Amino acid sequence: MTHSIYIALVHHPVVNKRGDIVTTSVTNFDLHDLSRNSSTYGVKGCFIVTPSQAQQDMVAYIRNYWREGKGADYNPDRKEAFEALYISGSLEESCLTIKKAHDKAPKLIATSAKSYDKVTLFRELREEISNTEDPYLIVFGTGWGLAETIINSADAVLEPIKGPVAYNHLPVRSAVAIVLDRLLGQ
Amino acid sequence: MTHSIYIALVHHPVVNKRGDIVTTSVTNFDLHDLSRNSSTYGVKGCFIVTPSQAQQDMVAYIRNYWREGKGADYNPDRKEAFEALYISGSLEESCLTIKKAHDKAPKLIATSAKSYDKVTLFRELREEISNTEDPYLIVFGTGWGLAETIINSADAVLEPIKGPVAYNHLPVRSAVAIVLDRLLGQ
Repeated sequence: MTHSIYIALVHHPVVNKRGDIVTTSVTNFDLHDLSRNSSTYGVKGCFIVTPSQAQQDMVAYIRNYWREGKGADYNPDRKEAFEALYISGSLEESCLTIKKAHDKAPKLIATSAKSYDKVTLFRELREEISNTEDPYLIVFGTGWGLAETIINSADAVLEPIKGPVAYNHLPVRSAVAIVLDRLLGQ
Repeated sequence: MTHSIYIALVHHPVVNKRGDIVTTSVTNFDLHDLSRNSSTYGVKGCFIVTPSQAQQDMVAYIRNYWREGKGADYNPDRKEAFEALYISGSLEESCLTIKKAHDKAPKLIATSAKSYDKVTLFRELREEISNTEDPYLIVFGTGWGLAETIINSADAVLEPIKGPVAYNHLPVRSAVAIVLDRLLGQ
């Protein structure tokens, strides 16, 4: 396995129900689920992106509990999962961290429940990443999804996940699991 | 779409870290995530299985909040998702409910992170359910997984989900999302 896939969970800028740009709160379950998803699929790092210092401190506190505190003794598998968790003030900062590690900026892949003109199909991206060690950052939005500024600045937007019916309101935790499975599952 | 797929999230009998048979607590996030996964993939019903009356009451309280309470006004999509949520005292009770609706007992499909001798492959089950309206109940365990009694009494055990690396400690919420996507996704 040679891929260099990273994921980011963005809490700002995202939209709320009315389409306003907001900052959402970090959800503890997201930290656990995304860390475990990342470890299962060999993702190099999972960035929790929030500009709020208080929220960043909370994520660091939880991460340390599982990496070095009582949680690490109680559940070594969880300790391993949390090793992949990074904290970032912005998506730009996440990209810089990846660029430093790989000497190359990551290709930014946005995700959305909506379909856009220039979507990349899952099978296209799966094929592309299987043939390169170049870094990729797959970006997921909390709330009602990523702000248009992120969608517009991305190198590609992934096609939406579709089930056999019209309903499409997956939790972001599920979307991350399904996207990683479609791109990296065996 | 003609399939009649149901899922069950079992809180008893499941095993803990040491392999003891235990009853786990219901997790609020599971109710939301599994309801939304079910609605996305056209699952006919999602059974929350626990023998504890207090836990059943709590699930009913949460379900009613989103189906008929303030939650239903605030988020109609969540209301729709929670329509698929059922509460059961046991897996036998879930099977009876399905049998009453279809005049036929469901085929019981167990899931596990471990591999068993007689596993059914995802592509085999996907093919099978695409050709029938017969009911199926796909069973997921909380804690450290389903008790052996359930595995042994199931009609089939699904192959474990594998990523490209050795780590395999997915949250049950992620496992449900990935299994439904592999069986019913487009």
